[in-house]
Amino acid sequence: MVTESNAVKPNRPSALDETLKIFSEKWTFAVLQELFFGVRRFDDFQRNLDISRSVLTTRLNHLVTYEVIRKVAYQDRPKRYEYKLTESGRAMYGSFVLLKQWGERWLNTGSAGELVLIHDSCSKKLEAELVCLHCGKPVSAHNTYPETIHGTP
Amino acid sequence: MVTESNAVKPNRPSALDETLKIFSEKWTFAVLQELFFGVRRFDDFQRNLDISRSVLTTRLNHLVTYEVIRKVAYQDRPKRYEYKLTESGRAMYGSFVLLKQWGERWLNTGSAGELVLIHDSCSKKLEAELVCLHCGKPVSAHNTYPETIHGTP
Repeated sequence: MVTESNAVKPNRPSALDETLKIFSEKWTFAVLQELFFGVRRFDDFQRNLDISRSVLTTRLNHLVTYEVIRKVAYQDRPKRYEYKLTESGRAMYGSFVLLKQWGERWLNTGSAGELVLIHDSCSKKLEAELVCLHCGKPVSAHNTYPETIHGTP
Repeated sequence: MVTESNAVKPNRPSALDETLKIFSEKWTFAVLQELFFGVRRFDDFQRNLDISRSVLTTRLNHLVTYEVIRKVAYQDRPKRYEYKLTESGRAMYGSFVLLKQWGERWLNTGSAGELVLIHDSCSKKLEAELVCLHCGKPVSAHNTYPETIHGTP
């Protein structure tokens, strides 16, 4: 059971964790962040997140159940496993980036030891914005409106 | 206290709720979604979300504490209040859009009664992608890498 009292206290500071202290169940997204940082193995998740083995097991199984990650054997004797993002898991990258970026912008994070993202194409610290796939123009709360999907047969 | 057992059961179906059943504390983001849909008043939040008054009060106060929303009087006798997004609250829009979009793409949502977002510039159902502010190119897990912030004096 995840409650607000057992908040994430990772070993390395993280803007995303700051964001999720406000918005969100923390461990699941914290595990997802580690996956985006390249972590694959149980002991590495545990060390980076300073999380109990039982909570980590629950969170990993939760993500496996929803097919956001899959468990893959990388050694036979003894059998050992690692966790890899599926296609839908990788598709969470944009949400992860924007939640992290929000924390960086609004919660005065950015301390030594924190990981930032570098964009290959320009080698700069990533600053991302959302644009429309149809017209290429920026997306904000000011230039969109909600509409109801009408009933289907 | 928010637990996994008291999941959001809004009156209208929502891709975002589906996403957050997997990833996240649910009520806070559900309230935020209502704000992005234009909801401002306590009774309207309560009706749309089918949430208890005490949980709703806690979630609204939580967002006020973090200055994501503010409480503004709109009537004097009797005193009545509504809730408005602050600048940092509006800046959560991108995360909200991408979480909702992920649910739409990967969780087979999109039922009658659900709200979708329309983009003003092109009048199409919003499909958003993340691009880099520096070089304008798309952002994905494949074209970024993490780097540690070095110590500051």
